[in-house]
Amino acid sequence: MARNLARKLIASHLVEGDMSPGSEVAVAIDQTLTQDATGTLVMQELESLGLRRARTEVSVQYVDHNILQTDEKNAEDHEFLRSAAQRYGIWFSKPGNGVSHPTHMQRFGIPGKTMVGSDSHTCAAGSLGMLAIGVGGLEVALAIAGQPLRIRMPEIWGVRLTGELPPWVSAKDVILEMLRRHSVKGGVNRIIEYHGPGLADLSAMDRHVIANMGAELGATTTVFPADEAVRDFLRSEGREQDFVELAADDGADYDVTDEIDLSQLQPLIAAPSAPDKVTPVSEVSGTPISQTVIGSSANPGLRDFAIAAAMVRGRQTSDAVSFDINPTSREILEDLTRMGATFDLITSGGRIHQSGCMGCIGMGQAPAVGQNSLRTFPRNFPGRSGTAEDSVWLCSPETAAASALTGQITDPRVFAEQTGMEYPKLALPETASVNTSMLQAPPDEQQALSVQLVKGPNISALPEFPPLPDRLELPVLLKTGDNVSTDEISPAGARALPLRSNIPALSEFTFTRLDETYPARAADHRDSGGHVVVGGANYGQGSSREHAAITPRHLGLRVVLALSFARIHWQNLVNFGILPLEFADAADYDRIADGHTLVFDNLHETLPNGAELTVHNTTRDESYSLRHRLSPRQIRAVLAGGLIPMLAEHSPA
Amino acid sequence: MARNLARKLIASHLVEGDMSPGSEVAVAIDQTLTQDATGTLVMQELESLGLRRARTEVSVQYVDHNILQTDEKNAEDHEFLRSAAQRYGIWFSKPGNGVSHPTHMQRFGIPGKTMVGSDSHTCAAGSLGMLAIGVGGLEVALAIAGQPLRIRMPEIWGVRLTGELPPWVSAKDVILEMLRRHSVKGGVNRIIEYHGPGLADLSAMDRHVIANMGAELGATTTVFPADEAVRDFLRSEGREQDFVELAADDGADYDVTDEIDLSQLQPLIAAPSAPDKVTPVSEVSGTPISQTVIGSSANPGLRDFAIAAAMVRGRQTSDAVSFDINPTSREILEDLTRMGATFDLITSGGRIHQSGCMGCIGMGQAPAVGQNSLRTFPRNFPGRSGTAEDSVWLCSPETAAASALTGQITDPRVFAEQTGMEYPKLALPETASVNTSMLQAPPDEQQALSVQLVKGPNISALPEFPPLPDRLELPVLLKTGDNVSTDEISPAGARALPLRSNIPALSEFTFTRLDETYPARAADHRDSGGHVVVGGANYGQGSSREHAAITPRHLGLRVVLALSFARIHWQNLVNFGILPLEFADAADYDRIADGHTLVFDNLHETLPNGAELTVHNTTRDESYSLRHRLSPRQIRAVLAGGLIPMLAEHSPA
Repeated sequence: MARNLARKLIASHLVEGDMSPGSEVAVAIDQTLTQDATGTLVMQELESLGLRRARTEVSVQYVDHNILQTDEKNAEDHEFLRSAAQRYGIWFSKPGNGVSHPTHMQRFGIPGKTMVGSDSHTCAAGSLGMLAIGVGGLEVALAIAGQPLRIRMPEIWGVRLTGELPPWVSAKDVILEMLRRHSVKGGVNRIIEYHGPGLADLSAMDRHVIANMGAELGATTTVFPADEAVRDFLRSEGREQDFVELAADDGADYDVTDEIDLSQLQPLIAAPSAPDKVTPVSEVSGTPISQTVIGSSANPGLRDFAIAAAMVRGRQTSDAVSFDINPTSREILEDLTRMGATFDLITSGGRIHQSGCMGCIGMGQAPAVGQNSLRTFPRNFPGRSGTAEDSVWLCSPETAAASALTGQITDPRVFAEQTGMEYPKLALPETASVNTSMLQAPPDEQQALSVQLVKGPNISALPEFPPLPDRLELPVLLKTGDNVSTDEISPAGARALPLRSNIPALSEFTFTRLDETYPARAADHRDSGGHVVVGGANYGQGSSREHAAITPRHLGLRVVLALSFARIHWQNLVNFGILPLEFADAADYDRIADGHTLVFDNLHETLPNGAELTVHNTTRDESYSLRHRLSPRQIRAVLAGGLIPMLAEHSPA
Repeated sequence: MARNLARKLIASHLVEGDMSPGSEVAVAIDQTLTQDATGTLVMQELESLGLRRARTEVSVQYVDHNILQTDEKNAEDHEFLRSAAQRYGIWFSKPGNGVSHPTHMQRFGIPGKTMVGSDSHTCAAGSLGMLAIGVGGLEVALAIAGQPLRIRMPEIWGVRLTGELPPWVSAKDVILEMLRRHSVKGGVNRIIEYHGPGLADLSAMDRHVIANMGAELGATTTVFPADEAVRDFLRSEGREQDFVELAADDGADYDVTDEIDLSQLQPLIAAPSAPDKVTPVSEVSGTPISQTVIGSSANPGLRDFAIAAAMVRGRQTSDAVSFDINPTSREILEDLTRMGATFDLITSGGRIHQSGCMGCIGMGQAPAVGQNSLRTFPRNFPGRSGTAEDSVWLCSPETAAASALTGQITDPRVFAEQTGMEYPKLALPETASVNTSMLQAPPDEQQALSVQLVKGPNISALPEFPPLPDRLELPVLLKTGDNVSTDEISPAGARALPLRSNIPALSEFTFTRLDETYPARAADHRDSGGHVVVGGANYGQGSSREHAAITPRHLGLRVVLALSFARIHWQNLVNFGILPLEFADAADYDRIADGHTLVFDNLHETLPNGAELTVHNTTRDESYSLRHRLSPRQIRAVLAGGLIPMLAEHSPA
């Protein structure tokens, strides 16, 4: 049988399981990536696991999220992470070195390797032909400790690209077209594999744009072949020796298929406040804006900034617009500066921010309430910008730059007509400003073992969670709609993010975007056994943060009953001992309300004996059929109170 | 009589009064400067005053403090300020355009002009031969409304400079030498006038460094002659036509004199946590550091960044150090980028932050507790960095860059010896990247009158304060030591600063760096008449923020009894109806404690009838002699409850 690339990558690393969709497979992991907002917990988990030294080929700890440093907490996290990276044999990327995903791609990405990362956009490395999957921090910790990743084998979704992108249309419009067609749930339990002649038009960094935002489709990951475009990229990074050619077999089979004719695309934009509210730019043009931000892992490449610089060169952005530039990394900023683009951006009115995630994760650049902000970012979930009632749109750098100049949403093709500008042919440097000195290599093992972890007052211990009782009689304290994101469960932003290493303090923010009273009400029920949350479809989409499991668990959450779950969050719930259950009949979702009492009985016997169980609603005296999708190992984890106590029971890491 | 330049400048703008030191003079004001952290109140004051249009030659509203935008408040302030600037005929400098003082010097500074600014470093414009004085916001509002500034005539302190600075010693070391000699109280009620042959060695921007930090000496302002160095500067800014030659008469008289032989200076550093804890760098070299920050209005010039860039070029800053760069302004960053210095800074590991005040005002870049941070900033008051137990040192860019490379405090002369580097001769561009498009000119008067003020939810109304009662019987709720800064009275930093337009919310931070219980205790006593604060010497030094008067007044503060006051804060107390009194006998300071009850009687009769009065301490049943330094107009203001109610009583602005 002609194999697709995704199955080849899994097969080459398969440790256990069979590769039929839905079965649990165990996949050996070559590399890991952690960022600071999730990494502080990962490092504490490594400590809990008693790890001697990382067993992966490469593990890297990046600092890109918490870099505003509005008080001492960020700097203390940085010190802790630097010491922990040294202790456990992990590379450390200093604050200012750049956003993890493009930086990892530039310095460490190798075709054919597997990677897990405690960031949902880890999938961006699929641009190089890697199998890169965003997971919860604990699973990254286990991978660092040498364990394989266990996931349900996804379907492989072959997306054939044909044609060439027209002028003023770029990679961001390709992934926005995918979101327009398939919604934020379209990729759930699937790996997206792009193939076809249209690839010839897309550089490796263009593919990063598309692979990165595969996360917004809910996909397990995205895979591109490793072809000449990848070789060119690695050569420009001084790493041609790392190139390995990889592709699907001719005529490969896919479980699902789709096709995009690139020549038919036009500039697209996602309206507030979901990445799949996609519409042609031409249909919303003229909408006044007060901010444009260029940057983030969704448009991280040199060309993404250079195209904007070429458009604003010799022009001035609108008086009414704040034109914010988030350079991706030190390397990109060096290249931009070398080629003169930094100068053009500054001269046109650009505010150059330090290299990192910045506004994409709600660290600064928050807009005024109700004012339209255009961003080249991957996500526009409500409030993620740091402003509760925000109005954030997602678009390409071309659309962002054209709109910054006019002060209103502007189709870049109209800008081109009005200015007579041809679509710029960018003269990008053939060789990148490779500079590894903000990347600190780990010391050798003997030295590493003597490194002391630097724990400032902001680094709390991991809370310990008890096993799951056989019977739960719990109130429903919150009922949500569909597509609740982990940003809504455990917010990011400048107030909450510095507390990522401090679970008790961070817990006070849990679900507050949906219901400010939740933390207090949950705390009231903690000692009497806890509570249940009822969710809609695609519950827990978005960021990989395991804080979205740990903080409600800390407040007493024992069961989430939902129509369906997003993959990473579902796994995080299990990892921290929260039982994720689905309605067998979606209509029953409507029969449960806030305040109802639910009884789950005989759990210790029921869970291992099949996927079905029932719950009794004592308030209405009626029962509903439920199901779980847990593997035997996951059932053991939930019963034990989570993966850490399970591992402690069964065997040390 | 041969006149000094300071007296000439005052005489040329004298409206009322005689110029003997201590007498109240009224001085006509040509220009004003406001920044966003103080400006939102100024704009509300203009609204309270019913102003039609600014009557100054030039007024400029800068946005340089609150630009992190961690939630919607900053962006809402920016919108409000932009609308108010348009409404009242004021230039608006957008966020990202730069720090007010150097930007004002570059675009608007004119020798011989007078200026007031609602920022204590307004005095920096003395570098061009201006008489520029930092005052409370309300006095800026009155100046915008066409009223003269009323101040007590200061002494003129002639500081003669001779010799030439040795290699690796620069302007920052000159002002640190002044602080070493004279302390933070040394300049109180004085204008510092630099003169002598040593000036030939100092560019206009070097003089800015020295004039700027005259604020740290407590001086009313600093004045330099307008000579060829000033002409060169204005020429480089494309404004040679604005040059006017100004100097003291030959053999001019000064009230006080001092002399510095520049050739005898060495690299100096102010230790934590006061600008006058100055010591030679060589005496603390080897101290480990974790951060270096270059920037702020205290080292804002192109050469300040360029010298650091030249030192780090081709080198890497220490793994243990965060090397933070705060470019002063868009113009400086453009010039740095043009000359290649930006590239060198990035390559060496620099984190390039957006143009603005940033860490200098506690907006980001906070260090970890107890870790040494070296900064080219003007101030290192405790906690001003955003970290409560911080350890901040102040030094020149040369010392900062050398230390960033080694990871420990390093004398740049030792760096030169060890590397064999000669002191760089910088090739600065002859013409600056002048670019005024982030400076928005006000519309004409007809258009301006129709502009609506944009008031988001974060813009509160100014509180109204009642007249001073004839008798006060009040508890002492706080007793402080010497040199309490306005940072300690009303903190800046990332949590408090966004609330600068919201007095009730900001009040909750009042004095919390000294006593967390103060706001609650003060609120408890507000309805029963308020309370007293007892202060030491130089009470209220530092920043000009009138919030340090308004927020305690909002909480019920009626009288501050101190050994002595810093000028701007003393005036701010009066402006908002708080009675500032001094001990006639310093020993009485020790006889009052927290919780004592003080009775001030017959105030309405006593205050206008001479400078002396008594207070009765009912707790100890003893009385103390006090004095005030209030002019008749100031007495009227205090009795009325502040300047705004006084003006409302007497005549509209």
